Amino acid sequence: MKAVRLHGYHQRPVVEEVPEPVCKGPLDVVVRIGGAGVCRTDLHIIEGQWAGAMDPALPYTIGHENAGWVHEIGSAVTSVAVGDTVILHPTPTCGLCHACRAGNDMHCAASSFPGLDGDGGMAEYLLTSARACVKLAPETKPRDVAALADAGITAYHAVRKALPLLYPGTTCVVLGAGGLGHIGIQCLAALTASKIVVVDRNADALKLAAELGAHETVVADGNQVSSVLDRTGGTGAEVVFDFVAEAGAEQDGFAMTARAGSYYVIGYGGTVHIPTLDIISTERSIVGNIVGTYNDLAELMRLAQDGLVTLHTKTYPLTAAVEALDDLDHGRVRGRAVLVP
Amino acid sequence: MKAVRLHGYHQRPVVEEVPEPVCKGPLDVVVRIGGAGVCRTDLHIIEGQWAGAMDPALPYTIGHENAGWVHEIGSAVTSVAVGDTVILHPTPTCGLCHACRAGNDMHCAASSFPGLDGDGGMAEYLLTSARACVKLAPETKPRDVAALADAGITAYHAVRKALPLLYPGTTCVVLGAGGLGHIGIQCLAALTASKIVVVDRNADALKLAAELGAHETVVADGNQVSSVLDRTGGTGAEVVFDFVAEAGAEQDGFAMTARAGSYYVIGYGGTVHIPTLDIISTERSIVGNIVGTYNDLAELMRLAQDGLVTLHTKTYPLTAAVEALDDLDHGRVRGRAVLVP
Amino acid sequence: MKAVRLHGYHQRPVVEEVPEPVCKGPLDVVVRIGGAGVCRTDLHIIEGQWAGAMDPALPYTIGHENAGWVHEIGSAVTSVAVGDTVILHPTPTCGLCHACRAGNDMHCAASSFPGLDGDGGMAEYLLTSARACVKLAPETKPRDVAALADAGITAYHAVRKALPLLYPGTTCVVLGAGGLGHIGIQCLAALTASKIVVVDRNADALKLAAELGAHETVVADGNQVSSVLDRTGGTGAEVVFDFVAEAGAEQDGFAMTARAGSYYVIGYGGTVHIPTLDIISTERSIVGNIVGTYNDLAELMRLAQDGLVTLHTKTYPLTAAVEALDDLDHGRVRGRAVLVP
Amino acid sequence: MKAVRLHGYHQRPVVEEVPEPVCKGPLDVVVRIGGAGVCRTDLHIIEGQWAGAMDPALPYTIGHENAGWVHEIGSAVTSVAVGDTVILHPTPTCGLCHACRAGNDMHCAASSFPGLDGDGGMAEYLLTSARACVKLAPETKPRDVAALADAGITAYHAVRKALPLLYPGTTCVVLGAGGLGHIGIQCLAALTASKIVVVDRNADALKLAAELGAHETVVADGNQVSSVLDRTGGTGAEVVFDFVAEAGAEQDGFAMTARAGSYYVIGYGGTVHIPTLDIISTERSIVGNIVGTYNDLAELMRLAQDGLVTLHTKTYPLTAAVEALDDLDHGRVRGRAVLVP
Repeated sequence: MKAVRLHGYHQRPVVEEVPEPVCKGPLDVVVRIGGAGVCRTDLHIIEGQWAGAMDPALPYTIGHENAGWVHEIGSAVTSVAVGDTVILHPTPTCGLCHACRAGNDMHCAASSFPGLDGDGGMAEYLLTSARACVKLAPETKPRDVAALADAGITAYHAVRKALPLLYPGTTCVVLGAGGLGHIGIQCLAALTASKIVVVDRNADALKLAAELGAHETVVADGNQVSSVLDRTGGTGAEVVFDFVAEAGAEQDGFAMTARAGSYYVIGYGGTVHIPTLDIISTERSIVGNIVGTYNDLAELMRLAQDGLVTLHTKTYPLTAAVEALDDLDHGRVRGRAVLVP
Repeated sequence: MKAVRLHGYHQRPVVEEVPEPVCKGPLDVVVRIGGAGVCRTDLHIIEGQWAGAMDPALPYTIGHENAGWVHEIGSAVTSVAVGDTVILHPTPTCGLCHACRAGNDMHCAASSFPGLDGDGGMAEYLLTSARACVKLAPETKPRDVAALADAGITAYHAVRKALPLLYPGTTCVVLGAGGLGHIGIQCLAALTASKIVVVDRNADALKLAAELGAHETVVADGNQVSSVLDRTGGTGAEVVFDFVAEAGAEQDGFAMTARAGSYYVIGYGGTVHIPTLDIISTERSIVGNIVGTYNDLAELMRLAQDGLVTLHTKTYPLTAAVEALDDLDHGRVRGRAVLVP
Repeated sequence: MKAVRLHGYHQRPVVEEVPEPVCKGPLDVVVRIGGAGVCRTDLHIIEGQWAGAMDPALPYTIGHENAGWVHEIGSAVTSVAVGDTVILHPTPTCGLCHACRAGNDMHCAASSFPGLDGDGGMAEYLLTSARACVKLAPETKPRDVAALADAGITAYHAVRKALPLLYPGTTCVVLGAGGLGHIGIQCLAALTASKIVVVDRNADALKLAAELGAHETVVADGNQVSSVLDRTGGTGAEVVFDFVAEAGAEQDGFAMTARAGSYYVIGYGGTVHIPTLDIISTERSIVGNIVGTYNDLAELMRLAQDGLVTLHTKTYPLTAAVEALDDLDHGRVRGRAVLVP
Repeated sequence: MKAVRLHGYHQRPVVEEVPEPVCKGPLDVVVRIGGAGVCRTDLHIIEGQWAGAMDPALPYTIGHENAGWVHEIGSAVTSVAVGDTVILHPTPTCGLCHACRAGNDMHCAASSFPGLDGDGGMAEYLLTSARACVKLAPETKPRDVAALADAGITAYHAVRKALPLLYPGTTCVVLGAGGLGHIGIQCLAALTASKIVVVDRNADALKLAAELGAHETVVADGNQVSSVLDRTGGTGAEVVFDFVAEAGAEQDGFAMTARAGSYYVIGYGGTVHIPTLDIISTERSIVGNIVGTYNDLAELMRLAQDGLVTLHTKTYPLTAAVEALDDLDHGRVRGRAVLVP
């Protein structure tokens, strides 16, 4: 089958032929891929940022945002059947550790992360586990939802965690209206009555944000902090969702956060530098966010099915993966790029 | 009356005669001071660290940890009477703003902070508000509890906020077993079954910590991070309470925090420098903590009355305030220094 | 001034002349009434159901849902000024007790309840407290919002409390689409993505419910329990909001509640009879709900101002109060009846 | 092997020979029983109270509180090994449904309940699942902890759920200091600083309660409600834990509950009759409680290992099961009866 393989860091991946995966364990599932999202994390993988944390043996197949159809199941799998339409939680989990049993399966002590620590889903087939499969309505098109598998649940997870803070009368800020941000905005609009202020450098991204539910948009032209403060009576926002977290956004985000407020870090790449006096005198929190839980993904699929969250995608054939990565890297993608068979 | 007055930053305060305060508004209360805690914040005030945030007109009377007896009440005060023994919440609040009404009165939009933004309680009498008075059993000695008014509720507030995270089987770390830390340890022992690991540079402080409920103690000798990781099977602690937050503790604290854990900042003086990748890949939070609520103080007084929290104090006459500040500055105080009439 | 006065239980109130109220205490406020909601509780008052709990001296003025304009203020009032448009929290509170300070001011240890324990607002003027006044945009018409003061915050309070239970994929049931219910439906639609199923005996009420955001409606024709179970795959709803809680609804409500779900009681009049085995074997909760907090009212006014909650009202002149009460009693009011000057 | 078998409702079970169970599925585990708790639910089973809900084919082996040693494992089991000392969660779960993944595995959509819906553990061997096994320190004696498997986690689960309500200054009431209650008292003492008031008809049970951490004890002599109200300044307790919930306790419990408080139902057998007006006018909740989660059991074992929870047991040989059931039925057991091999 065809797969997008990384042979070395700081090199472009190549599309090449590899053997199809097959089920080995009783809970294994092989999925025929119908859509594979292209994520900024893929760029960071190529840059070697994840090499230390994940250490996959090169070459390997990247891709961690997948939906498709069940192709083969292990002997003990009863929760899905061959032919089922599924979206895949990115990290198959053990189900037995404290975190899995506490409803925090993204902190599973024994999970894998296909596409980061082993072969992923920018390919025709992917080997995963029954525990990772969320069953969809048969008519769902995998290409329409694939990017919800990682960009989606990450954005949804952050928004869901913040809901108790976003009662009517509050303001939230979204930094970055790209792949994750444009989903986060829709989740906020569906689940809160908070005022949504979106900040981005790109006017088209802000236009899309306004269509998706942003109440106000701010161009990141250097005055974005004071502009947000002005729109909140000088106090800042109760929650700032930073989908960028690099190139200065990570300082802006904290500066836009109100007393007793929370700065949610979702993007990455930069470094926060904050005096502890500023943290304690205003009792602000800096909150890390990683991919969501299996249940988060199932809930998000319900929002998608109800038409409350819609992905804005640009599709590329699997063989054009490198072009898609380039477009993402150069800011030429609104919403999310998705590879299709 | 005698009062401890600051005439200029980077100068020692002086004990001098000033007029006694009197009630002006209908909710005013004048308290005869029975105990005034000496806090590291007083040192930071003298160093000018709070000048920008609080901007008091110099000279003024410092002191923000007070208990005593009601001496005079305004015309509309019904909640306390002359002669009542009281401990004082450090920030008299308005009771009308969103924060006050939401149970977060330390974020009151119109509070004052005697001892930081105006005359405080290192004096014979203090002008405060009926809203700040927590009534005590008549026989309570103000000198025994005064330091709970700020050091106490700050430590208690942080511990109470963290309780849902500290279920049986978890580990918490206390960085710094001084004025706040030694109260925090007792609150943790009273309210959780979490394993309490205390880190301090001072062997005497660690000895006191062990007597107060610490299950394990670690000397901060440069190997404290690896020592804590060793004691948690390599994972770190679910919650780290940093009562120091300067001089490197602020980096240690985050490094000791487990995946999905929380680093609680309570002390101040340093600066956190953390890559956003480290924040998101482990979903850790950095949580600011300020003084607690009026109800926090009332709850803490209940713990004190039940013998579950006991202050370890060293008393000085009011006239020896400068000596007390010096002792604190040079690490010569175990527990808390308290000025008495 | 004119006022609607109750001279004896089981008698119709009468509209008669009484002296205008005046400020006596420093925090008193007299409000010129622009709208006074007519509530099922007024009927229950007349029936004597509240006589034991509230014990007002007869005759007295009923009415506990009010908005209007500030007419006179006490000497210490700074939060509102004469001429301000305000809506009134129904229970002026002390601001000093544990409940007030914990953000649960509806459980104030020293509140009053004008219209239940003393003269209320079915009158030209009402004496209340500065603590009860929520300031509105000057152009707001009191008659348009008055019913949010009690029916509104009660419905909002219950919905807000239930929000953590109502994640995407859940179902909630609203029993009774009347004065409170039709507000509750709008709050649910604004703040959740839960499926909203509304049950009522009246086809017109169900039609209004569907316009306001109900996803499904069920006629209470005797088969309503099985109908709701059918619509939830046999499991019942995660949360049932019972705005009726009499005449059998209180048994239906629990029967419609899913395993691990919550039955929210908001209406009253009936009696629940439930075997403890049914409660524990499914771990269901029966949750009482009373009027909301001051902050709840402020948040609800934000929803109203944003157009997310709109009252459906039928206005009557103050002098037609008895007719309005009769119409309510006989099911002739859709939404809420409001008396106007 | 020997097993305690129920041949008909309203008949005494008999101890008889049956074949030993063997692993059939890949995740099956057979445990050699070292201790089997005797529970009031066993009496209720014999009385037929659970026949409708569980409908086991008679005859079958009762017993749902077990600890022992792993005797045989299925082909896919990796989390325990033959010879491991284990305590068994009473309801083996699927790990795949929404409840399991949300950390509420006691609401698993596909769990079994050995001893209620099929053969249980009053026997020499029990067939269970790897998902139900909590590994213990090898030296743990199963007989010492077995009763924590159901009585223990049920009590712990209720207490843990109530912790946010039980801040310093609150009062909680424990109705019934028997098998569950005496564990609940210890959990409360270990995890809160709330005042613990215990009510029981039996003076010996109250004596044990006082030794285990009760601050006050009340004989249930007919005046228990007024006695509890007296001890709380007339207001009632913030939380009432009803481990009895029959024979009038279920009315007492609600009557002892303070405004805004919670009545936790844990025992069963009676029926609550409460006017909805009483529920809403005080905003009280009636909270059902069932057995806890796997993680609850693991946390409780940590308390047990730390010496914070100790079972008071009376052991009987397995062959004396009927005598043990009789003793329980006639109030002759303090703490918990446990069958041993």
